[in-house]
Amino acid sequence: MDDDMEGGLYQERTRTFPNMRSKPYSPLIFRLLMRINSRVLVVLLLFGLGALFYIGASTSPIIVFVYSVCIISFLVSIYLTKWVLSKDEGPPEMVQISEAIRDGAEGFFRTQYGTISKMAILLGLVILSIYLFRSTTPQQESSGLGRSTSAYITVAAFLLGALCSGIAGYVGMWVSVRANVRVSSAARRSAREALQIAVRAGGFSALVVVGMAVIGIAVLYATFYVWLEVDSPGAMKVSDLPLLLVGYGFGASFVALFAQLGGGIYTKAADVGADLVGKVEQGIPEDDPRNPAVIADLVGDNVGDCAARGADLFESIAAEIISAMILGGTMAQRCKIEDPSGFILFPLVVHSFDLVISSVGIFSIRNTRDSGIIGAMEDPMKILQKGYSVTVVLAVLTFGLSTRWMLYTEQAPSAWLNFALCGLVGIMTAYIFVYITKYYTDYKHEPVRTLALSSSTGHGTNIIAGVSLGLESTALPVLVISISIISAFWLGQTSGLVDESGSPTGGLFGTAVATMGMLSTAAYVLTMDMFGPIADNAGGIVEMSQQPESVREITDVLDAVGNTTKATTKGFAIGSAALASFLLFSAYMDEVASFAHVAFNQVDIAIPEVFIGGLLGSMLIYLFSAWACAAVGRSAQEVVNEVRRQFIERPGIMDYKEKPDYGRCVSIVASASLREMIKPGALAIISPIVVGFLFRVLGYYTGHPLLGAKVVAAMLMFATVSGILMALFLNTAGGAWDNAKKYIETGALGGKGSDCHKAAVTGDTVGDPFKDTAGPSLHVLIKMLATITLVMAPIFL
Amino acid sequence: MDDDMEGGLYQERTRTFPNMRSKPYSPLIFRLLMRINSRVLVVLLLFGLGALFYIGASTSPIIVFVYSVCIISFLVSIYLTKWVLSKDEGPPEMVQISEAIRDGAEGFFRTQYGTISKMAILLGLVILSIYLFRSTTPQQESSGLGRSTSAYITVAAFLLGALCSGIAGYVGMWVSVRANVRVSSAARRSAREALQIAVRAGGFSALVVVGMAVIGIAVLYATFYVWLEVDSPGAMKVSDLPLLLVGYGFGASFVALFAQLGGGIYTKAADVGADLVGKVEQGIPEDDPRNPAVIADLVGDNVGDCAARGADLFESIAAEIISAMILGGTMAQRCKIEDPSGFILFPLVVHSFDLVISSVGIFSIRNTRDSGIIGAMEDPMKILQKGYSVTVVLAVLTFGLSTRWMLYTEQAPSAWLNFALCGLVGIMTAYIFVYITKYYTDYKHEPVRTLALSSSTGHGTNIIAGVSLGLESTALPVLVISISIISAFWLGQTSGLVDESGSPTGGLFGTAVATMGMLSTAAYVLTMDMFGPIADNAGGIVEMSQQPESVREITDVLDAVGNTTKATTKGFAIGSAALASFLLFSAYMDEVASFAHVAFNQVDIAIPEVFIGGLLGSMLIYLFSAWACAAVGRSAQEVVNEVRRQFIERPGIMDYKEKPDYGRCVSIVASASLREMIKPGALAIISPIVVGFLFRVLGYYTGHPLLGAKVVAAMLMFATVSGILMALFLNTAGGAWDNAKKYIETGALGGKGSDCHKAAVTGDTVGDPFKDTAGPSLHVLIKMLATITLVMAPIFL
Repeated sequence: MDDDMEGGLYQERTRTFPNMRSKPYSPLIFRLLMRINSRVLVVLLLFGLGALFYIGASTSPIIVFVYSVCIISFLVSIYLTKWVLSKDEGPPEMVQISEAIRDGAEGFFRTQYGTISKMAILLGLVILSIYLFRSTTPQQESSGLGRSTSAYITVAAFLLGALCSGIAGYVGMWVSVRANVRVSSAARRSAREALQIAVRAGGFSALVVVGMAVIGIAVLYATFYVWLEVDSPGAMKVSDLPLLLVGYGFGASFVALFAQLGGGIYTKAADVGADLVGKVEQGIPEDDPRNPAVIADLVGDNVGDCAARGADLFESIAAEIISAMILGGTMAQRCKIEDPSGFILFPLVVHSFDLVISSVGIFSIRNTRDSGIIGAMEDPMKILQKGYSVTVVLAVLTFGLSTRWMLYTEQAPSAWLNFALCGLVGIMTAYIFVYITKYYTDYKHEPVRTLALSSSTGHGTNIIAGVSLGLESTALPVLVISISIISAFWLGQTSGLVDESGSPTGGLFGTAVATMGMLSTAAYVLTMDMFGPIADNAGGIVEMSQQPESVREITDVLDAVGNTTKATTKGFAIGSAALASFLLFSAYMDEVASFAHVAFNQVDIAIPEVFIGGLLGSMLIYLFSAWACAAVGRSAQEVVNEVRRQFIERPGIMDYKEKPDYGRCVSIVASASLREMIKPGALAIISPIVVGFLFRVLGYYTGHPLLGAKVVAAMLMFATVSGILMALFLNTAGGAWDNAKKYIETGALGGKGSDCHKAAVTGDTVGDPFKDTAGPSLHVLIKMLATITLVMAPIFL
Repeated sequence: MDDDMEGGLYQERTRTFPNMRSKPYSPLIFRLLMRINSRVLVVLLLFGLGALFYIGASTSPIIVFVYSVCIISFLVSIYLTKWVLSKDEGPPEMVQISEAIRDGAEGFFRTQYGTISKMAILLGLVILSIYLFRSTTPQQESSGLGRSTSAYITVAAFLLGALCSGIAGYVGMWVSVRANVRVSSAARRSAREALQIAVRAGGFSALVVVGMAVIGIAVLYATFYVWLEVDSPGAMKVSDLPLLLVGYGFGASFVALFAQLGGGIYTKAADVGADLVGKVEQGIPEDDPRNPAVIADLVGDNVGDCAARGADLFESIAAEIISAMILGGTMAQRCKIEDPSGFILFPLVVHSFDLVISSVGIFSIRNTRDSGIIGAMEDPMKILQKGYSVTVVLAVLTFGLSTRWMLYTEQAPSAWLNFALCGLVGIMTAYIFVYITKYYTDYKHEPVRTLALSSSTGHGTNIIAGVSLGLESTALPVLVISISIISAFWLGQTSGLVDESGSPTGGLFGTAVATMGMLSTAAYVLTMDMFGPIADNAGGIVEMSQQPESVREITDVLDAVGNTTKATTKGFAIGSAALASFLLFSAYMDEVASFAHVAFNQVDIAIPEVFIGGLLGSMLIYLFSAWACAAVGRSAQEVVNEVRRQFIERPGIMDYKEKPDYGRCVSIVASASLREMIKPGALAIISPIVVGFLFRVLGYYTGHPLLGAKVVAAMLMFATVSGILMALFLNTAGGAWDNAKKYIETGALGGKGSDCHKAAVTGDTVGDPFKDTAGPSLHVLIKMLATITLVMAPIFL
């Protein structure tokens, strides 16, 4: 709460932003914690830690390893924060702007997560009642996992997942609203230092997000293991344990969906609104302090990009770990492997190593060779990529190590090698995805240059070219994904692991390992991603506090790099979503089979109802994207009207004589985006449930068993496929438009202010909701559909 | 060749259009026919007709009925042409423009179909070699249908289908380039007369297109029946006969795909290019004679809308008839119905009635109550819709009649009633589809008004709103299609028809009957569709020949009505494509089963390779749309550069002092669109073959039988679903943008020339390739994928 700043500045702030900071606020949990004596707190913490390790040790030594790595990485992240916060915040005008951004972001976050938590609790109750009234298998009852136990477990896991996802989002935002001003301040001194602060701030939240996903699942796993006395005679088998964790994944994706929707609508409504009046109508530059929507735009970067991406990647990793654990358990059981825990806990180990190697990657970006402003400005992208290369090389090594350690089994002595190759396939897929995204969105390459050229014939041809570029850009990623799924499946299938009847069974687990390989550098990728909005914000603060041109140049370069890393992360997120959904789909089929006590291993789209399920699933993606884009359009129009009104009512704004009312724009965007996130979010959650239930009823009356489950399965698969394609289209088109505009702004084709530039700005505006609202929300939607069908499976049967 | 016009006018023309009419041309076949004495010709014709009826009579009396109806409808269509051609062509300036359009259209058609026919012959050879080397069933060999016979049959059917499809396209264009000037001339006298000429001209080509589809299949069926001595002991069964017709469907869709692509690219490249320089840069109205691209634009209406839509609907009807015949045959065989010919020939009868009732509908639009220009102008849409209502009512009646006549069987006495209800479901689906399309694209309703409003905040928000409108508009049609598939399937399933084991089998045939119901007014719908481009062209001629404002008003109203009917026809085309593909998919599974001698009745998307087939299928749709849109963008840019060049080099154009070089634009567009149609077309044809073959090889090496066939099946289904959604999105968004612009031009939101209007023009430009190139090509693509997999099935096994 920075009490030392609360003097004159606060006065100033409250005048300018009347709707912010109406009451000082800290979350209830912090207030409670602060009331407790600090020594008591330390004792409690140590005690909790001890209990954690005790439970972990009675489960498996691997869990202890995972705990240790996570705790070390939390310590590293605390070091990173301290390092970032020790940097100066620059002159008072910067601090003032930064505080306005922080207040806006925290205010929105509070309201948004207030709404989300209410919905989560409501949904938790729904899940509870569904599970209390579902039928259980006799086997489950006998293993002590009765109806009520499994209901409470699922709901508890759901709420924990939701909570952790919320914390992940909060952490992402918390650090970015503090790092932005420090980056701008550092930019006055050295580009390299600014870069380093942004990277370390991003690294902090990346380590926390990934670490929390890993430790959360590890804790749940160990707790259930000890509580349910797993593997003791008559109790449940360890290979069935991961299925109890799906609630965690659903909770995480539930929160991530609304975080991404609300944040995405917020950031783009503010951005589009600000640009349309500021850039296009009034001709003032981006982030100009005269624009009343500029603070809202900067707040948007934090809540839209940082908070939402934190929740998104948290959810990706959680979903991927859980689905891989389920598949590992199923396979180990089928192959009668003596100690299945290696296969089940493998994903946790992979991500523990991820924390280690990504930290190395983050720390490899150092301040030493700083040869002044110009020298360092030459290639921030290369610096980041050097760090990425370090991380990838380490990932290959540690992945090989972990497969040998965890997946070696005497039944198939060379299986671990095959799985290591699967991991390599995943790592390579990630690398190629990043490259393809760069090819289509970077103006160094042909596509964006062609797009820029098409702007010279007007707005219309720019949009047509952008749309076709986006549609075309789906082809290569799909081919890559196809090849990697097939080769990983084949590597797994030929690993030598066979079931009782001697037929090979490792295929699906192979694709799971490939997914892990893809995500094995997740923390570093998330760091690069978080870097973008921090740099963007820093640029905004520099512009608003009217710093010299040389400082703005530094932040501009960082911002441009951030745009590229943001785009590549999206490619990465889609690739992993595609693979993770395919795994979750298999897990769903296992789950249905275990609930329904019959084999459920095919989804036959030649059945009309199942085909219709697919049609509805694809349609869901289109409708969801439509509503997400329309929400941005509507909210942006509100901003446009407000900004226009302010320019008319306060004519002095343009001559810096009057101050615009930033706060009003912030509150308009906040309330609009909260209102608008509900419709698409509810659509995503309700429609699979409704479809599954309707077709279950239909199946009951037409004598078609399991119809509901089959239709939902088809819906899920078609939605995944359409979602991947649509997200690729939206993200790439948006990124390409953005960079085509940037390319023209470098002076090409007439440069800034030319007709060509105006057409490119139109493209950029259209691309904004594509790439930052609808596209990223689709990643989350895909995985949420997979987890919701897993959790809601009892309804469809 | 109108020798009487060849005097001074020809001189004038050759100066203006140097690249047209370089040599007088009539197709080889006409030249040959013209050399023969006319009496000999009549004798030959009568002889041919007699042979036709003889073969028909030895097959089934139903075939004779179908022949008779088709021949009568050809006579009716000849009457319609004579009626249209008897109208005057107006003053010489109109004739001159009209001839320029005709020359451009015929020139392009010649080159385009030259290219297409070469490709068709090449593909015919490929098919021949595939069939000569495939394996046949012993049963087929014994029934006289050996390897070579079936190869020649398939290739002959393919070439005949291609030829008929080409003729259908030619007929559509032939009448429209002659009717346009007569409509403009009539518009000087009376709106009602102009409307009537446009409708009758459209009716002529609609009757020819539908009639040719029906009689072509009937002739093939009867010929094969007599030739192969079907139903005689030891020979092939009549229920297997329809499978021999698939080549016809493939030939039709092959030609339709390239016709639609080439024509679509042509029309929109010219339109976008003309608008971008003319409307936006120079501020001259649409179809202004000063615009050098205006003739190319008018030519585009004929080759893009008339010729392509003719081929498209021909192909739709052919595909739908053949798939329904296959399903009818399969079902009749399963249910051991004594005389299956009723079930097999039912679709031919339905479409024969379609010819009759649509003729009634066309003739119901009469000239009698013409109360002068203003009175008639009040509601041309209502006149057309009255005709549609007449047709629909008659369709319901005749459909009920035909089901009672054809589908009554003693095994299930009430089955015909169920199927009649299926037909009703189809007719209602068509009606609702038309209504939904109108809701989303007509500016009388909310969505387009909101879109128009969003133009007031700029180009960007207009595009965002249009994209979200288009994406959202997919939801209702999908729900309607889903409900109609399920209810028709259920009606068929409960019809009382059971197979040997007593399980109900009529479900799929129920959906087939619903599809027929949907298409049972096809000829009238096609008439309304053809009306659009003719009215559009007439408007262009009126504008170019600088007629008084009152004449222009009449053609404007007709043009606006044409836009609506065009949009609704597209909805209709997608709905029927969705249903037809589902049928063809079932036919494909039957065919694979019969080739592979094993049951093939499920496509399990839980198998990774099959899932990937789906992913690739959906991706195909995106890539195809991308290339189609990009083709328009690229060609339009060439036009823009040429038009700009002409305005600079001939500054007198703007003051009517110099004549622009129309011919150069025509030839630029023609060569660009011929070049650009190859890439997307080849993609569509080659990719299913490559995917099927690759996975067949993969399946061979991994010991997975029928893998190629399964993967192709998934590819087909996913491509169908994605194609339906994408086509709905593209068509609706395009139509809505067009009408939002038209709404603003009525004076709303600032009217013509305002910033809001400029933003709306941008939307319209973007929508052009969406709704007239990519969208309609997707309809054809969906059905072509279904027929290509049917014909190429031997490669995948």
